Amino acid sequence: METKIEKIKNIMKRELSCSAHNLDHVMRVHNMCIFLSHHEENVDLDVLIPAALLHDIARVIESKDKSGGTDHAILGSEMAEDILKDLDYDDKKIKEIKHCIITHRYRSGNEPKTIEAKILFDADKLDVIGSIGIARTFMLAGQFGQNLSKDNMVDDYKSTNTSENGRLKDVSKHSPFMEYEDKFKHVPKKLYTKKAKEIGEKRLKIMDDFFKSLELEIKGIE
Amino acid sequence: METKIEKIKNIMKRELSCSAHNLDHVMRVHNMCIFLSHHEENVDLDVLIPAALLHDIARVIESKDKSGGTDHAILGSEMAEDILKDLDYDDKKIKEIKHCIITHRYRSGNEPKTIEAKILFDADKLDVIGSIGIARTFMLAGQFGQNLSKDNMVDDYKSTNTSENGRLKDVSKHSPFMEYEDKFKHVPKKLYTKKAKEIGEKRLKIMDDFFKSLELEIKGIE
Repeated sequence: METKIEKIKNIMKRELSCSAHNLDHVMRVHNMCIFLSHHEENVDLDVLIPAALLHDIARVIESKDKSGGTDHAILGSEMAEDILKDLDYDDKKIKEIKHCIITHRYRSGNEPKTIEAKILFDADKLDVIGSIGIARTFMLAGQFGQNLSKDNMVDDYKSTNTSENGRLKDVSKHSPFMEYEDKFKHVPKKLYTKKAKEIGEKRLKIMDDFFKSLELEIKGIE
Repeated sequence: METKIEKIKNIMKRELSCSAHNLDHVMRVHNMCIFLSHHEENVDLDVLIPAALLHDIARVIESKDKSGGTDHAILGSEMAEDILKDLDYDDKKIKEIKHCIITHRYRSGNEPKTIEAKILFDADKLDVIGSIGIARTFMLAGQFGQNLSKDNMVDDYKSTNTSENGRLKDVSKHSPFMEYEDKFKHVPKKLYTKKAKEIGEKRLKIMDDFFKSLELEIKGIE
Protein backbone atom coordinates (compact mmCIF):
# COMPACT_ATOMS: atom_id res chain seq x y z
CA MET A 1 0.00 0.00 0.00
CA GLU A 2 1.13 3.53 -0.79
CA THR A 3 2.38 5.51 2.19
CA LYS A 4 1.29 9.08 2.80
CA ILE A 5 4.70 10.30 1.66
CA GLU A 6 4.46 8.32 -1.59
CA LYS A 7 1.03 9.87 -2.16
CA ILE A 8 2.45 13.36 -1.62
CA LYS A 9 5.31 12.60 -4.03
CA ASN A 10 2.85 11.51 -6.69
CA ILE A 11 0.75 14.64 -6.20
CA MET A 12 3.88 16.77 -6.69
CA LYS A 13 4.91 14.85 -9.81
CA ARG A 14 1.48 15.56 -11.28
CA GLU A 15 1.43 19.19 -10.10
CA LEU A 16 4.89 19.99 -11.48
CA SER A 17 4.72 17.67 -14.51
CA CYS A 18 5.02 20.62 -16.92
CA SER A 19 8.08 21.85 -15.08
CA ALA A 20 10.78 19.19 -14.71
CA HIS A 21 13.23 21.77 -13.34
CA ASN A 22 10.98 22.59 -10.40
CA LEU A 23 10.47 18.93 -9.60
CA ASP A 24 14.25 18.35 -9.66
CA HIS A 25 14.63 21.30 -7.29
CA VAL A 26 12.00 19.87 -4.93
CA MET A 27 13.82 16.55 -4.77
CA ARG A 28 17.19 18.23 -4.13
CA VAL A 29 15.65 20.31 -1.33
CA HIS A 30 14.05 17.15 0.09
CA ASN A 31 17.45 15.39 0.10
CA MET A 32 19.20 18.39 1.65
CA CYS A 33 16.53 18.67 4.37
CA ILE A 34 17.17 15.07 5.40
CA PHE A 35 20.94 15.68 5.32
CA LEU A 36 20.62 18.82 7.49
CA SER A 37 18.23 17.07 9.90
CA HIS A 38 21.07 14.71 10.89
CA HIS A 39 22.97 17.71 12.23
CA GLU A 40 20.14 19.08 14.39
CA GLU A 41 18.26 17.74 17.38
CA ASN A 42 14.57 16.94 17.81
CA VAL A 43 13.65 17.33 14.16
CA ASP A 44 10.17 16.02 13.36
CA LEU A 45 10.54 14.31 9.98
CA ASP A 46 6.77 13.87 9.80
CA VAL A 47 6.63 17.65 9.51
CA LEU A 48 9.87 18.31 7.59
CA ILE A 49 9.46 15.75 4.77
CA PRO A 50 5.90 16.68 3.74
CA ALA A 51 6.85 20.37 3.99
CA ALA A 52 9.93 19.83 1.79
CA LEU A 53 7.93 17.94 -0.82
CA LEU A 54 5.04 20.43 -0.87
CA HIS A 55 6.88 23.75 -0.44
CA ASP A 56 6.79 24.71 -4.13
CA ILE A 57 3.40 23.26 -5.02
CA ALA A 58 2.11 26.69 -6.10
CA ARG A 59 5.22 27.62 -8.11
CA VAL A 60 3.68 26.91 -11.51
CA ILE A 61 0.56 28.91 -10.60
CA GLU A 62 2.71 31.85 -9.47
CA SER A 63 4.71 31.81 -12.73
CA LYS A 64 1.55 31.73 -14.80
CA ASP A 65 -0.01 34.64 -12.91
CA LYS A 66 1.12 37.60 -14.99
CA SER A 67 -0.41 40.09 -12.52
CA GLY A 68 2.30 39.15 -10.00
CA GLY A 69 -0.35 38.90 -7.29
CA THR A 70 0.27 35.26 -6.36
CA ASP A 71 2.71 34.43 -3.56
CA HIS A 72 3.50 30.74 -3.97
CA ALA A 73 4.48 30.39 -0.31
CA ILE A 74 1.09 31.56 0.94
CA LEU A 75 -1.00 29.87 -1.76
CA GLY A 76 1.14 26.73 -1.44
CA SER A 77 0.45 26.46 2.29
CA GLU A 78 -3.30 26.57 1.58
CA MET A 79 -3.06 23.94 -1.15
CA ALA A 80 -0.97 21.79 1.18
CA GLU A 81 -3.60 22.06 3.92
CA ASP A 82 -6.26 20.52 1.67
CA ILE A 83 -3.96 17.69 0.62
CA LEU A 84 -2.84 16.93 4.18
CA LYS A 85 -6.43 16.90 5.48
CA ASP A 86 -7.34 14.38 2.78
CA LEU A 87 -4.43 12.24 3.95
CA ASP A 88 -5.65 12.40 7.58
CA TYR A 89 -2.76 14.41 8.99
CA ASP A 90 -3.76 15.83 12.37
CA ASP A 91 -4.33 19.55 12.86
CA LYS A 92 -1.14 20.11 14.82
CA LYS A 93 1.08 18.60 12.11
CA ILE A 94 -0.81 20.48 9.40
CA LYS A 95 -0.24 23.74 11.26
CA GLU A 96 3.48 23.02 11.58
CA ILE A 97 3.86 21.98 7.94
CA LYS A 98 2.01 25.12 6.82
CA HIS A 99 4.36 27.25 8.91
CA CYS A 100 7.34 25.71 7.09
CA ILE A 101 5.81 26.36 3.67
CA ILE A 102 4.75 29.96 4.41
CA THR A 103 8.15 30.90 5.81
CA HIS A 104 10.37 29.22 3.20
CA ARG A 105 10.30 32.29 0.99
CA TYR A 106 12.74 35.15 1.21
CA ARG A 107 10.28 37.93 0.65
CA SER A 108 7.21 36.73 2.52
CA GLY A 109 8.33 38.63 5.63
CA ASN A 110 7.41 35.68 7.84
CA GLU A 111 10.34 34.27 9.76
CA PRO A 112 10.81 30.53 10.26
CA LYS A 113 10.33 29.79 14.00
CA THR A 114 10.57 25.99 14.27
CA ILE A 115 13.62 23.83 13.55
CA GLU A 116 11.78 22.18 10.64
CA ALA A 117 10.97 25.58 9.08
CA LYS A 118 14.57 26.71 9.54
CA ILE A 119 15.91 23.57 7.85
CA LEU A 120 13.52 23.93 4.90
CA PHE A 121 14.43 27.61 4.52
CA ASP A 122 18.15 26.73 4.54
CA ALA A 123 17.85 23.78 2.13
CA ASP A 124 15.84 25.88 -0.32
CA LYS A 125 18.35 28.76 -0.23
CA LEU A 126 21.36 26.43 -0.58
CA ASP A 127 19.92 25.30 -3.90
CA VAL A 128 20.51 28.74 -5.47
CA ILE A 129 24.25 28.80 -4.73
CA GLY A 130 27.25 26.60 -5.49
CA SER A 131 27.57 24.63 -8.72
CA ILE A 132 23.86 23.97 -8.78
CA GLY A 133 23.26 27.71 -8.39
CA ILE A 134 25.56 28.41 -11.33
CA ALA A 135 23.80 25.80 -13.47
CA ARG A 136 20.32 27.08 -12.59
CA THR A 137 21.24 30.76 -13.06
CA PHE A 138 22.65 30.22 -16.52
CA MET A 139 19.76 27.97 -17.55
CA LEU A 140 17.37 30.77 -16.60
CA ALA A 141 19.60 33.29 -18.38
CA GLY A 142 19.35 31.17 -21.54
CA GLN A 143 15.62 30.76 -21.17
CA PHE A 144 15.06 34.52 -20.82
CA GLY A 145 17.62 35.52 -23.47
CA GLN A 146 19.86 37.33 -21.00
CA ASN A 147 23.27 38.60 -21.92
CA LEU A 148 26.48 37.09 -20.62
CA SER A 149 28.39 40.31 -20.29
CA LYS A 150 28.72 42.45 -17.19
CA ASP A 151 27.87 45.60 -19.15
CA ASN A 152 24.26 45.68 -17.96
CA MET A 153 25.44 45.98 -14.41
CA VAL A 154 25.05 49.72 -13.96
CA ASP A 155 23.92 51.36 -10.75
CA ASP A 156 20.86 53.07 -12.12
CA TYR A 157 19.65 49.90 -13.79
CA LYS A 158 18.36 48.32 -10.59
CA SER A 159 16.06 51.19 -9.68
CA THR A 160 14.54 51.29 -13.16
CA ASN A 161 14.07 47.55 -13.61
CA THR A 162 12.54 46.62 -10.26
CA SER A 163 8.79 46.77 -9.60
CA GLU A 164 7.24 47.60 -6.24
CA ASN A 165 6.80 43.92 -5.41
CA GLY A 166 10.54 43.40 -5.83
CA ARG A 167 10.24 41.56 -9.13
CA LEU A 168 12.10 42.44 -12.28
CA LYS A 169 10.18 44.35 -14.92
CA ASP A 170 12.30 43.06 -17.78
CA VAL A 171 14.02 39.82 -16.90
CA SER A 172 15.93 39.78 -20.21
CA LYS A 173 17.92 42.82 -19.03
CA HIS A 174 19.06 40.99 -15.92
CA SER A 175 22.27 38.99 -15.90
CA PRO A 176 23.92 36.17 -13.93
CA PHE A 177 26.64 38.57 -12.73
CA MET A 178 23.94 40.77 -11.21
CA GLU A 179 22.19 37.85 -9.57
CA TYR A 180 25.47 36.92 -7.98
CA GLU A 181 26.27 40.42 -6.69
CA ASP A 182 22.76 41.28 -5.54
CA LYS A 183 21.52 38.00 -4.20
CA PHE A 184 23.75 34.95 -3.98
CA LYS A 185 26.61 36.66 -2.12
CA HIS A 186 24.25 37.38 0.77
CA VAL A 187 22.74 33.89 1.10
CA PRO A 188 25.06 32.25 3.68
CA LYS A 189 24.58 34.95 6.33
CA LYS A 190 20.80 34.57 6.08
CA LEU A 191 20.84 30.87 6.89
CA TYR A 192 19.75 29.56 10.29
CA THR A 193 21.44 26.21 10.95
CA LYS A 194 25.16 25.72 11.55
CA LYS A 195 25.66 22.95 8.99
CA ALA A 196 23.82 24.92 6.30
CA LYS A 197 26.04 27.95 6.96
CA GLU A 198 29.11 25.74 6.53
CA ILE A 199 27.82 24.33 3.24
CA GLY A 200 26.78 27.83 2.19
CA GLU A 201 30.28 29.24 2.66
CA LYS A 202 31.76 26.37 0.67
CA ARG A 203 29.24 26.84 -2.13
CA LEU A 204 29.79 30.59 -2.18
CA LYS A 205 33.52 30.03 -2.66
CA ILE A 206 32.73 27.86 -5.71
CA MET A 207 30.59 30.67 -7.15
CA ASP A 208 33.14 33.32 -6.34
CA ASP A 209 35.93 31.44 -8.12
CA PHE A 210 33.63 30.77 -11.04
CA PHE A 211 32.58 34.38 -11.64
CA LYS A 212 36.17 35.59 -11.28
CA SER A 213 37.45 33.16 -13.88
CA LEU A 214 34.46 33.86 -16.13
CA GLU A 215 35.28 37.55 -16.09
CA LEU A 216 38.90 36.88 -17.09
CA GLU A 217 37.86 34.46 -19.82
CA ILE A 218 35.39 36.98 -21.26
CA LYS A 219 38.22 39.48 -21.51
CA GLY A 220 40.22 36.83 -23.40
CA ILE A 221 42.88 36.55 -20.70
CA GLU A 222 43.44 32.85 -20.06
CA MET B 1 37.83 57.58 -41.61
CA GLU B 2 36.69 54.08 -40.82
CA THR B 3 39.39 51.44 -41.15
CA LYS B 4 38.74 48.16 -42.95
CA ILE B 5 38.62 46.37 -39.59
CA GLU B 6 36.04 48.83 -38.25
CA LYS B 7 33.97 48.23 -41.37
CA ILE B 8 34.16 44.47 -40.85
CA LYS B 9 33.15 44.89 -37.19
CA ASN B 10 30.11 46.93 -38.23
CA ILE B 11 29.11 44.33 -40.81
CA MET B 12 29.27 41.63 -38.12
CA LYS B 13 27.23 43.72 -35.67
CA ARG B 14 24.54 44.07 -38.32
CA GLU B 15 24.76 40.42 -39.40
CA LEU B 16 24.53 39.05 -35.83
CA SER B 17 22.24 41.79 -34.46
CA CYS B 18 19.50 39.25 -33.73
CA SER B 19 21.95 37.09 -31.86
CA ALA B 20 23.84 38.96 -29.13
CA HIS B 21 25.35 35.72 -27.84
CA ASN B 22 27.04 34.99 -31.16
CA LEU B 23 28.44 38.50 -31.34
CA ASP B 24 29.85 38.20 -27.80
CA HIS B 25 31.45 34.91 -28.84
CA VAL B 26 33.01 36.52 -31.91
CA MET B 27 34.55 39.27 -29.79
CA ARG B 28 35.92 36.77 -27.24
CA VAL B 29 37.43 34.71 -30.06
CA HIS B 30 38.91 37.88 -31.57
CA ASN B 31 40.52 38.78 -28.21
CA MET B 32 41.85 35.27 -27.70
CA CYS B 33 43.32 35.19 -31.23
CA ILE B 34 45.31 38.34 -30.46
CA PHE B 35 46.41 36.88 -27.12
CA LEU B 36 47.55 33.61 -28.74
CA SER B 37 49.30 35.46 -31.58
CA HIS B 38 51.75 36.93 -29.01
CA HIS B 39 52.93 33.40 -28.27
CA GLU B 40 53.56 32.41 -31.90
CA GLU B 41 55.94 33.67 -34.56
CA ASN B 42 55.23 35.22 -37.95
CA VAL B 43 51.50 35.64 -37.44
CA ASP B 44 49.86 37.82 -40.07
CA LEU B 45 47.31 39.89 -38.16
CA ASP B 46 45.93 41.22 -41.45
CA VAL B 47 44.74 37.66 -42.03
CA LEU B 48 43.98 36.59 -38.47
CA ILE B 49 41.87 39.56 -37.34
CA PRO B 50 39.47 39.66 -40.32
CA ALA B 51 39.19 35.86 -40.13
CA ALA B 52 38.39 36.00 -36.38
CA LEU B 53 35.76 38.68 -36.90
CA LEU B 54 34.13 36.97 -39.89
CA HIS B 55 34.39 33.30 -38.91
CA ASP B 56 30.78 32.95 -37.71
CA ILE B 57 29.12 35.28 -40.22
CA ALA B 58 26.90 32.43 -41.50
CA ARG B 59 25.95 31.12 -38.04
CA VAL B 60 22.50 32.68 -38.01
CA ILE B 61 21.76 31.35 -41.51
CA GLU B 62 22.87 27.85 -40.48
CA SER B 63 20.63 27.92 -37.39
CA LYS B 64 17.64 29.07 -39.44
CA ASP B 65 18.14 26.33 -42.05
CA LYS B 66 15.96 23.55 -40.68
CA SER B 67 17.10 21.13 -43.41
CA GLY B 68 20.55 21.01 -41.79
CA GLY B 69 22.14 21.45 -45.21
CA THR B 70 24.05 24.66 -44.43
CA ASP B 71 27.64 24.48 -43.17
CA HIS B 72 28.39 27.90 -41.71
CA ALA B 73 32.15 27.44 -42.18
CA ILE B 74 31.82 26.91 -45.93
CA LEU B 75 29.02 29.43 -46.51
CA GLY B 76 30.80 31.91 -44.20
CA SER B 77 34.00 31.76 -46.23
CA GLU B 78 32.02 32.62 -49.37
CA MET B 79 30.23 35.51 -47.70
CA ALA B 80 33.57 36.73 -46.35
CA GLU B 81 35.08 36.65 -49.86
CA ASP B 82 32.47 39.09 -51.17
CA ILE B 83 32.96 41.45 -48.22
CA LEU B 84 36.76 41.36 -48.46
CA LYS B 85 36.71 42.02 -52.22
CA ASP B 86 34.52 45.08 -51.61
CA LEU B 87 37.09 46.27 -49.09
CA ASP B 88 39.93 45.85 -51.63
CA TYR B 89 41.75 43.03 -49.87
CA ASP B 90 44.16 41.37 -52.31
CA ASP B 91 43.53 37.86 -53.60
CA LYS B 92 46.32 36.27 -51.55
CA LYS B 93 44.97 37.63 -48.25
CA ILE B 94 41.41 36.67 -49.20
CA LYS B 95 42.54 33.13 -49.92
CA GLU B 96 44.31 32.91 -46.55
CA ILE B 97 41.36 34.39 -44.62
CA LYS B 98 38.98 31.97 -46.37
CA HIS B 99 41.20 29.05 -45.38
CA CYS B 100 40.95 30.13 -41.73
CA ILE B 101 37.16 30.38 -41.88
CA ILE B 102 36.62 27.06 -43.69
CA THR B 103 38.88 25.15 -41.31
CA HIS B 104 37.67 26.66 -38.01
CA ARG B 105 34.92 24.08 -37.71
CA TYR B 106 35.31 20.74 -36.00
CA ARG B 107 33.32 18.70 -38.44
CA SER B 108 34.23 20.26 -41.78
CA GLY B 109 37.01 17.70 -42.27
CA ASN B 110 39.35 20.41 -43.51
CA GLU B 111 42.45 20.80 -41.37
CA PRO B 112 43.95 24.21 -40.56
CA LYS B 113 47.32 24.45 -42.34
CA THR B 114 48.53 28.01 -41.62
CA ILE B 115 49.43 29.47 -38.23
CA GLU B 116 46.54 31.95 -38.51
CA ALA B 117 44.07 29.11 -39.19
CA LYS B 118 45.47 27.12 -36.27
CA ILE B 119 45.12 30.08 -33.91
CA LEU B 120 41.53 30.76 -34.99
CA PHE B 121 40.65 27.07 -34.58
CA ASP B 122 42.17 27.05 -31.09
CA ALA B 123 40.56 30.31 -29.96
CA ASP B 124 37.14 29.15 -31.16
CA LYS B 125 37.45 25.79 -29.37
CA LEU B 126 38.71 27.37 -26.13
CA ASP B 127 35.45 29.31 -25.97
CA VAL B 128 33.44 26.11 -25.36
CA ILE B 129 35.41 25.08 -22.26
CA GLY B 130 36.27 26.60 -18.89
CA SER B 131 33.92 28.93 -17.03
CA ILE B 132 32.71 30.44 -20.28
CA GLY B 133 31.98 26.92 -21.56
CA ILE B 134 29.95 26.17 -18.43
CA ALA B 135 28.01 29.42 -18.79
CA ARG B 136 27.30 28.85 -22.49
CA THR B 137 26.35 25.19 -22.06
CA PHE B 138 23.81 25.92 -19.35
CA MET B 139 22.39 28.91 -21.21
CA LEU B 140 21.77 26.62 -24.19
CA ALA B 141 20.35 23.97 -21.86
CA GLY B 142 17.88 26.56 -20.53
CA GLN B 143 17.03 27.76 -24.00
CA PHE B 144 16.28 24.24 -25.24
CA GLY B 145 14.52 23.08 -22.05
CA GLN B 146 17.13 20.44 -21.26
CA ASN B 147 17.19 18.58 -18.01
CA LEU B 148 19.83 19.07 -15.36
CA SER B 149 20.06 15.48 -14.26
CA LYS B 150 22.50 12.88 -15.52
CA ASP B 151 19.70 10.36 -16.03
CA ASN B 152 19.48 10.96 -19.76
CA MET B 153 23.03 9.84 -20.13
CA VAL B 154 22.40 6.28 -21.24
CA ASP B 155 24.52 4.44 -23.77
CA ASP B 156 21.82 3.73 -26.29
CA TYR B 157 20.66 7.34 -26.27
CA LYS B 158 23.50 8.63 -28.42
CA SER B 159 22.83 6.27 -31.33
CA THR B 160 19.12 7.08 -31.38
CA ASN B 161 19.42 10.85 -31.05
CA THR B 162 22.15 11.58 -33.61
CA SER B 163 21.42 12.22 -37.28
CA GLU B 164 23.72 11.27 -40.12
CA ASN B 165 25.20 14.77 -40.25
CA GLY B 166 26.24 14.43 -36.61
CA ARG B 167 23.56 16.79 -35.33
CA LEU B 168 21.14 16.01 -32.54
CA LYS B 169 17.64 15.04 -33.57
CA ASP B 170 16.07 16.21 -30.31
CA VAL B 171 18.23 18.77 -28.56
CA SER B 172 15.90 18.86 -25.54
CA LYS B 173 16.97 15.30 -24.67
CA HIS B 174 20.61 16.33 -24.56
CA SER B 175 22.21 17.49 -21.32
CA PRO B 176 25.23 19.51 -20.15
CA PHE B 177 26.71 16.38 -18.53
CA MET B 178 26.66 14.66 -21.91
CA GLU B 179 28.21 17.63 -23.69
CA TYR B 180 31.01 17.50 -21.17
CA GLU B 181 31.64 13.76 -21.50
CA ASP B 182 31.26 13.57 -25.27
CA LYS B 183 32.81 16.80 -26.41
CA PHE B 184 34.50 19.16 -23.97
CA LYS B 185 36.79 16.58 -22.39
CA HIS B 186 38.41 15.99 -25.76
CA VAL B 187 39.00 19.62 -26.69
CA PRO B 188 42.54 20.27 -25.35
CA LYS B 189 44.12 17.37 -27.24
CA LYS B 190 42.69 18.65 -30.51
CA LEU B 191 44.28 22.08 -30.21
CA TYR B 192 47.29 23.06 -32.31
CA THR B 193 49.25 25.78 -30.51
CA LYS B 194 51.22 25.29 -27.30
CA LYS B 195 49.71 28.22 -25.41
CA ALA B 196 46.17 27.19 -26.34
CA LYS B 197 46.84 23.66 -25.07
CA GLU B 198 48.04 25.13 -21.76
CA ILE B 199 44.93 27.30 -21.42
CA GLY B 200 42.80 24.34 -22.51
CA GLU B 201 44.12 22.09 -19.74
CA LYS B 202 43.49 24.81 -17.17
CA ARG B 203 39.96 25.37 -18.44
CA LEU B 204 39.23 21.65 -18.51
CA LYS B 205 40.25 21.40 -14.86
CA ILE B 206 37.70 24.14 -14.03
CA MET B 207 34.99 22.18 -15.86
CA ASP B 208 36.00 18.91 -14.29
CA ASP B 209 35.80 20.34 -10.76
CA PHE B 210 32.50 21.98 -11.61
CA PHE B 211 30.75 18.85 -12.89
CA LYS B 212 32.06 16.80 -9.97
CA SER B 213 30.71 19.23 -7.40
CA LEU B 214 27.45 19.62 -9.34
CA GLU B 215 26.92 15.88 -9.18
CA LEU B 216 27.43 15.85 -5.41
CA GLU B 217 25.14 18.83 -4.92
CA ILE B 218 22.39 17.19 -6.99
CA LYS B 219 22.59 14.18 -4.71
CA GLY B 220 22.21 16.54 -1.74
CA ILE B 221 25.65 15.77 -0.34
CA GLU B 222 27.25 19.11 0.52
